[in-house]
Amino acid sequence: MRLSISKEEILTRQERFLQKLLEKELDCAILFSPIDIFYLTGFHFHPTERPMAFYIDPEHKTHLFVPYLEEEHAQDFTAQIHYVHSYPEYPGIKHPMEYFKDELVKAGFQGKRIGVDSIGYGSPSGYRGPSLDQLLEAKEFQSIKYVIPDMRAVKSPAEIELINESCRWGNLAHRLLQKYSKPGLSELEITSRASTESTLAMIETLGADYKPHGETAFALFRGQIGEMSAYPHAVTQNAVLKTGDTLVTASSASIWGYKSELERTMFVKEVSKEQETFFQYMYDAQEVAFQHIKPGKPTSYVEEAVQRYFKENNITHLTRHHTGHAIGLLFHEAPFFDLGDHTIMQPGMVFTVEPGIYVKGLGGFRHSDTVLVTENGMEMLTYYPRDLESLICY
Amino acid sequence: MRLSISKEEILTRQERFLQKLLEKELDCAILFSPIDIFYLTGFHFHPTERPMAFYIDPEHKTHLFVPYLEEEHAQDFTAQIHYVHSYPEYPGIKHPMEYFKDELVKAGFQGKRIGVDSIGYGSPSGYRGPSLDQLLEAKEFQSIKYVIPDMRAVKSPAEIELINESCRWGNLAHRLLQKYSKPGLSELEITSRASTESTLAMIETLGADYKPHGETAFALFRGQIGEMSAYPHAVTQNAVLKTGDTLVTASSASIWGYKSELERTMFVKEVSKEQETFFQYMYDAQEVAFQHIKPGKPTSYVEEAVQRYFKENNITHLTRHHTGHAIGLLFHEAPFFDLGDHTIMQPGMVFTVEPGIYVKGLGGFRHSDTVLVTENGMEMLTYYPRDLESLICY
Repeated sequence: MRLSISKEEILTRQERFLQKLLEKELDCAILFSPIDIFYLTGFHFHPTERPMAFYIDPEHKTHLFVPYLEEEHAQDFTAQIHYVHSYPEYPGIKHPMEYFKDELVKAGFQGKRIGVDSIGYGSPSGYRGPSLDQLLEAKEFQSIKYVIPDMRAVKSPAEIELINESCRWGNLAHRLLQKYSKPGLSELEITSRASTESTLAMIETLGADYKPHGETAFALFRGQIGEMSAYPHAVTQNAVLKTGDTLVTASSASIWGYKSELERTMFVKEVSKEQETFFQYMYDAQEVAFQHIKPGKPTSYVEEAVQRYFKENNITHLTRHHTGHAIGLLFHEAPFFDLGDHTIMQPGMVFTVEPGIYVKGLGGFRHSDTVLVTENGMEMLTYYPRDLESLICY
Repeated sequence: MRLSISKEEILTRQERFLQKLLEKELDCAILFSPIDIFYLTGFHFHPTERPMAFYIDPEHKTHLFVPYLEEEHAQDFTAQIHYVHSYPEYPGIKHPMEYFKDELVKAGFQGKRIGVDSIGYGSPSGYRGPSLDQLLEAKEFQSIKYVIPDMRAVKSPAEIELINESCRWGNLAHRLLQKYSKPGLSELEITSRASTESTLAMIETLGADYKPHGETAFALFRGQIGEMSAYPHAVTQNAVLKTGDTLVTASSASIWGYKSELERTMFVKEVSKEQETFFQYMYDAQEVAFQHIKPGKPTSYVEEAVQRYFKENNITHLTRHHTGHAIGLLFHEAPFFDLGDHTIMQPGMVFTVEPGIYVKGLGGFRHSDTVLVTENGMEMLTYYPRDLESLICY
């Protein structure tokens, strides 16, 4: 089993990217986005205050521009990148962007039509520096910010395989989370155990070829325990579980950067009639969403159906967010199952489906499954039980 | 013991921020940076595709603008924020930035001098939207991108206490990492165990008041094992430890968002003469750095001294990065111990000190300690043993 994207597929991505540049009548392009650079080159790195960039020059050669401390690492990727350039350090006696300017001038960028995902490098980690238009004379700087994100939205068979592999280990982490969820135990205690044991099983199974490029297997609550589960994006409070608590979980694992999302509503030992009622609404809303995922329809079509269902049942006031988002190299990607998103669904798109209901004083009710848009409808990639009976923690 | 920043200190930050706006002759300000918003309000949230903003209006009232799903959570902070506003969802039928525009107009932003940390909301997670200058008529949009980061650079006694607490749990995680580092065990196996056990001890000790707002205790290698330790920012390869390997570690814990950094060069069971030699160079280089950390001197002064030491010992070619960075709410913050950074050191600044030596085929040699600039020099906040004898894993 292959646990990465092949060199051939990386090169195909570069060709498709180049094709898009030509369609926009651009001579060359510069990218700063770490995720988009990884997608186009396979070079995975931790972004810091030190600028990194990928560029395609007017001769259509590909380049990586990295700090000296990443140079050897970047050189490992020369099968899929023509040139690697480095600068000493940030901020340095001469600023990295001045080195970058020298390289761009050498590569013939002056006076050209240049596609850029951003007009300069940006990082919250203490980076300060000039923008490209302060450094270079261009015929045009054109934003191509969404070119790679749009390419990333439709997944290849190899990408889907990696997401499937992610589902497998998210499933194990979640199974252990459920097993260890007992009254009297604290949030972090349960999630640490589940995450560690699933990670160990994963690495023993996958062996030395496994590169997470992200989080290894994990399962957690993000503070959504008991009444706090009514906060859809609560932060960890390290609560202690009590009998009767509603739990909202999340689990995943990164496989060479690719992610899936599995979330479940669970109950500690006992379920009240009220909890059962809201669970059923949530369950049915997710079913409605599944039935409306079809290639050729806009993503808003799914959200409209779910909203209709909520309205018919008079529970719109208990909802707080749209039904889902695309997922891949990032947990949240465009497009969205949202009233205002009219992107046409295509086979190969991968989404989370997670309509939620939040009842103050009682709890939150949300499952999230990762699904693939197929030629005829959809395929569920996550496979953890969804029914109430299976989701009571004893 | 207090495990957060008090409401009073948050309000003092807001007053100081307002003072800076007045000095710049600004009427009002808008911030999008999640870290800077947290610093100014205590409101901690996970940034997503959904825009969030903090603003001070021309009447000097403070506002949070959040998606509906964060509204209740944001309402918990009204003791330190005048108003909370929300919008239904992103992208929504009406775009969040259109709602934002309505609020800003209502609050009197039209025609004013507006400070902004960024001209629009940005997120890699599928967000697309207009910039502020497309929405509002302002007399001026002035970048105040560095105002809060500059405030964050000098830590208060309460912030230093949280960083000290972080050092304590990073120390425990590192102790366990060393204990579990044995030939034949894999990277993730060791790091998961050390991180889980230290996290459990931390939460049992600190109790329910502990909010990580970041990572709980962890200790890891980031792939820097054996020959791979020569890659200063290697990514996890899940290597198996062998006798004689050089290891480069990292450990920390977030306490209400505040971080420390502890890194050590360790050896598995045996140390060669060559490893000992490079260890000693690294150790001495760190000592040189410590001796040059003094208030009133520029940060470059420290780097110059370390570079001089490397040059005198003919090992400059084995170095790859500057000596350190500031640390606080982010692991990497400005200023830097770098030849090109001439920021004057002030009491209350907190830095990592981590000159590194990288020998291809042998390994990397780097300790990192977190230090506080004091009235007379510096104080070491991390306290793990630094000597070679103490750093052999048996």
